[in-house]
Amino acid sequence: MTHQPTDPVQLTADLVRCPSVTPEEGGALVLLQGLLEAAGFACTRVDRGGVANLFARWGEKGHAKSFGFNGHTDVVPVGDLAAWTVDPFGAEVKDGILYGRGATDMKSGVAAFAAAAVDFVRETPPEGAIVLTITGDEEGDAVDGTTALLEYMEREGERMSICIVGEPTCPEEMGDMMKIGRRGSMNAHFTMTGKQGHSAYLHRALNPMPAMARLMDRLSSHVLDEGTDHFDPSTLAVVTIDTGNPATNVVPAQTRATLNIRFNDTHTGASLSEWLRAETAKVDAEFGTRTELTIKISGEAFLTPPGPLSELVAKSVEAETGRSPELSTTGGTSDARFVRHHCPVVEFGLVGKTLHQVDENVEVAQIGQLKAIYTRMLRDYFA
Amino acid sequence: MTHQPTDPVQLTADLVRCPSVTPEEGGALVLLQGLLEAAGFACTRVDRGGVANLFARWGEKGHAKSFGFNGHTDVVPVGDLAAWTVDPFGAEVKDGILYGRGATDMKSGVAAFAAAAVDFVRETPPEGAIVLTITGDEEGDAVDGTTALLEYMEREGERMSICIVGEPTCPEEMGDMMKIGRRGSMNAHFTMTGKQGHSAYLHRALNPMPAMARLMDRLSSHVLDEGTDHFDPSTLAVVTIDTGNPATNVVPAQTRATLNIRFNDTHTGASLSEWLRAETAKVDAEFGTRTELTIKISGEAFLTPPGPLSELVAKSVEAETGRSPELSTTGGTSDARFVRHHCPVVEFGLVGKTLHQVDENVEVAQIGQLKAIYTRMLRDYFA
Repeated sequence: MTHQPTDPVQLTADLVRCPSVTPEEGGALVLLQGLLEAAGFACTRVDRGGVANLFARWGEKGHAKSFGFNGHTDVVPVGDLAAWTVDPFGAEVKDGILYGRGATDMKSGVAAFAAAAVDFVRETPPEGAIVLTITGDEEGDAVDGTTALLEYMEREGERMSICIVGEPTCPEEMGDMMKIGRRGSMNAHFTMTGKQGHSAYLHRALNPMPAMARLMDRLSSHVLDEGTDHFDPSTLAVVTIDTGNPATNVVPAQTRATLNIRFNDTHTGASLSEWLRAETAKVDAEFGTRTELTIKISGEAFLTPPGPLSELVAKSVEAETGRSPELSTTGGTSDARFVRHHCPVVEFGLVGKTLHQVDENVEVAQIGQLKAIYTRMLRDYFA
Repeated sequence: MTHQPTDPVQLTADLVRCPSVTPEEGGALVLLQGLLEAAGFACTRVDRGGVANLFARWGEKGHAKSFGFNGHTDVVPVGDLAAWTVDPFGAEVKDGILYGRGATDMKSGVAAFAAAAVDFVRETPPEGAIVLTITGDEEGDAVDGTTALLEYMEREGERMSICIVGEPTCPEEMGDMMKIGRRGSMNAHFTMTGKQGHSAYLHRALNPMPAMARLMDRLSSHVLDEGTDHFDPSTLAVVTIDTGNPATNVVPAQTRATLNIRFNDTHTGASLSEWLRAETAKVDAEFGTRTELTIKISGEAFLTPPGPLSELVAKSVEAETGRSPELSTTGGTSDARFVRHHCPVVEFGLVGKTLHQVDENVEVAQIGQLKAIYTRMLRDYFA
């Protein structure tokens, strides 16, 4: 039996038409499961906590040579529908551009890999396994998404030897960047308390505002590091200070602030938490204020050091695009932060300029290129 | 016809029960007008811009010997009602303490003087005039309050030769302080603008938060002066910083702050405005932000030098309390800042420990003492 090659553009369009806004499955995983099972993949739905997830494996369970792929079919909300010039779930193609929510982030990436994998196992059944872990919650809390899939794999003795995450990674041109790690991210919420009083009798009050200004100035102006070989310098952003005191003749009892830190692997969430607590205690001691500090670590910094996996990706990208992708660790978090506990992971996908935006769109040609790149990775990996 | 002496405690309680939160008249001025007219005062409501004001005179218009009193019946808002242990407008008396918003600031002061004046003109009608200027907006913008009354007096040929402002002036014990001047007061509102962006890509944004923290820290920690013969050191209070950014992955485009300065006669509103503008420009230059600065000068610093008026007050206070009141210029602004353009003015009232606070309260005994002190001032003045 011979098969027509699977069209990744058609598959992207079919997926975009599934309204899978987190946590809605929207038909996207059902569609993929049908496609993969027809090609001999063993599929299991690993749903948890109202989130749909799909595990699919071709070949032997736990094989030492298991090529893994991780992606998501959920999408962020449409936002201001009136601002869209197309149906966000219409998958309309105009002048070589496919439009729709998830076109870039990341139904095209999932479609390109699924198409590549399905054709690959049919044409040149490899010695080893191909594993897809596709979640329906990457854009939401991500608590019952890729984590649920990885826990399932652990329990069942399933394996990925390496893993590609198919998020859009290229800032400008197809093939210009892969991601070999990510900065960590954490938020700190400060609630600083003094003693309310009259602006004219400051000695009877304890105004927390000067203490907050001092603390936020100190934290903002501290140089966390100068960057590393693979990471940009860590950054700290005070994102808000709020007091809500409308009266100029009253100094407030309390003020709040929030900051976000994106940190490289010279820090951990714990080391930064310790620093924040120490600086806060210092200011509290100077001013007499009391500060409650709540810290939430969204993800630690991690790195898959340049090596065989990044070389596999780079070679395939160069062969298809003529570009040598930068090995980067910039940008926001992705599910690679979970996968990296399981196996070496690198992220590579197409250009992500319009992700999360109105009129999100993708160049049709890039979807074909991405399939070709993923196909080449599979071929080289199993060669 | 003989009259019972007017009970200043009962009158205070009646006034507290009028919910006269600025700019509500709440029945307070109507109540006073009834009392004063019954004693032969000519009363005129001088309402303006939604604010109620009461002018009352006993005796000849424009008399060279016109004893003036200035006060207000409006009160600041209740604030956190749940934190009150009594009805803020209940005027409950427990263990010799009267509770309620305005109990201290300054319905008791108004009640004590009105009671003193009413009894005085009935018992010993003086050669001269007694003038009360009572406003319903001292705690608010104070644009259409005492100013409106003074403009009315100017137009009508009305006069106060000297004036007592009945604000609570004693910090600890009844009679321990009078005020012979006040610091100036000004507010500055800062709106600082940068460029919004993603917390993970700070180089593409311009976060105004660090610049705001730096500016507020610098202004707060600057020593304005060391005080003068009659004045405490000037103070600066940042009263609020507000941004309203709920997203930790976004740095805001804009943030706002407000500060209040209480300044002595080594400064003027103009000299401080110049300093604020220079410091703001410096920070804007350092960070690249743009800051809009709006300054409102509520009053310049002023002084009624020690002399006959302060001696009149001191003598009465000493006779009734055995205490020699300190001649002070501490504290917040009061309408004395307007009155001082009309005639020599001194402020004297009772102990103000709980003003503007939850469970605001006044010792019942102090209200009686205050009436006795005001009565003695009237007697000595007209003697």
